[in-house]
Amino acid sequence: METLPSYAEDIYGGDSPSISMLSEVAAARKITIVGGSIPEKASGKVFNTCCVIGPDGQILAEHRKPSGTCVTDVGRIGIGICHDIRFPELAMLYRSKGAHLICYPSAFNMSTGELLWDLMQKSRAVDNQLFVATCSPARDPNANSDYMIWGHSSLIGPFGEVLAAAGHEEATVIGGMDLSTIQSTRENLPLEMQSRGDLYRLVDVLVNDSMKSRSDLCREMPA
Amino acid sequence: METLPSYAEDIYGGDSPSISMLSEVAAARKITIVGGSIPEKASGKVFNTCCVIGPDGQILAEHRKPSGTCVTDVGRIGIGICHDIRFPELAMLYRSKGAHLICYPSAFNMSTGELLWDLMQKSRAVDNQLFVATCSPARDPNANSDYMIWGHSSLIGPFGEVLAAAGHEEATVIGGMDLSTIQSTRENLPLEMQSRGDLYRLVDVLVNDSMKSRSDLCREMPA
Repeated sequence: METLPSYAEDIYGGDSPSISMLSEVAAARKITIVGGSIPEKASGKVFNTCCVIGPDGQILAEHRKPSGTCVTDVGRIGIGICHDIRFPELAMLYRSKGAHLICYPSAFNMSTGELLWDLMQKSRAVDNQLFVATCSPARDPNANSDYMIWGHSSLIGPFGEVLAAAGHEEATVIGGMDLSTIQSTRENLPLEMQSRGDLYRLVDVLVNDSMKSRSDLCREMPA
Repeated sequence: METLPSYAEDIYGGDSPSISMLSEVAAARKITIVGGSIPEKASGKVFNTCCVIGPDGQILAEHRKPSGTCVTDVGRIGIGICHDIRFPELAMLYRSKGAHLICYPSAFNMSTGELLWDLMQKSRAVDNQLFVATCSPARDPNANSDYMIWGHSSLIGPFGEVLAAAGHEEATVIGGMDLSTIQSTRENLPLEMQSRGDLYRLVDVLVNDSMKSRSDLCREMPA
């Protein structure tokens, strides 16, 4: 945490080696990239930011504040960073905004990893009947750190099925998403229709309270 | 489903062998019983109803409409029946009402059981940092039915840990709950404080709309 400010990049100021690299690769391969998360400096603060880059190399969306989804050539994607996965409301909000996939760049450790990593991604996928992808750093058993990484990046389907998963070592994992299974899962089990709107309702505060300044809502990096 | 009306009991009309039996046992053993669920007839309809019986043999609460919790000598209990476990909002509502434990009398089958039984109870417990107990019928491999029961009644702690679990056969399972672990789990990881009330909010519709007739909200047995 102490060293993060010195690594922070100015994404829109043209001084961001990470985004330049992602942009270059996305354009060269003509693919959409959800680019993990990096420390970003903006307005004199440090944010934990994840950018989505389109096949033209441009930034499609940057996630500092967990409230938006972005449309890409492979579907509508919602982003959560690490601990965001612990909040069912965020995933429910993304579902209500039409997300097909929620990506959580994350770095769970050995204890939270063993207990919660699989559980959280599967339950977000199953409860919202959509795809969930997680991307974790690989584990470095020789790292001089008391935060040992769990690893196990995964792609989970709308019924909680594991479509692809890495181990704890560095790996490239390829998994396919058939977006039509979202529709078929929801038709087979219409959770949204069965949901008791007469008893509970999740409110999108930003939509219901559009006067609120969005700039208040940036997620600052914990100090 | 066709035979349920003929088994339905009139709980408050004094013609309910199931409740009489539960009441008798609760009083004799001086214990609180969450009495599974039975078909109940009332107002000319059939409901899927779960009663909680206190150590004095009296009904503490009957669950037809998933919106209430009841205070017992072993803590505040919320009830959901079977498919109710699929809805994160209901568990969140119970948490907001102070539930220590959510009991889900359920009867998952072999396919939903394998994929979702563990996942759903653990995620409700972890997301809301409380205890979850499920009680399922045992599996009868010789049953003349195309709905084979999964079984595996369980007690799950606030960190997703399995405190007790049955197999698929008939069994009595005893598990202890240390309610203080709810508090310590929430202090260690203050999810509620970290939750982004500026972005999303779960609304208890009955509290926010107290003019609505509660009698509209009874959960009818699907025909």
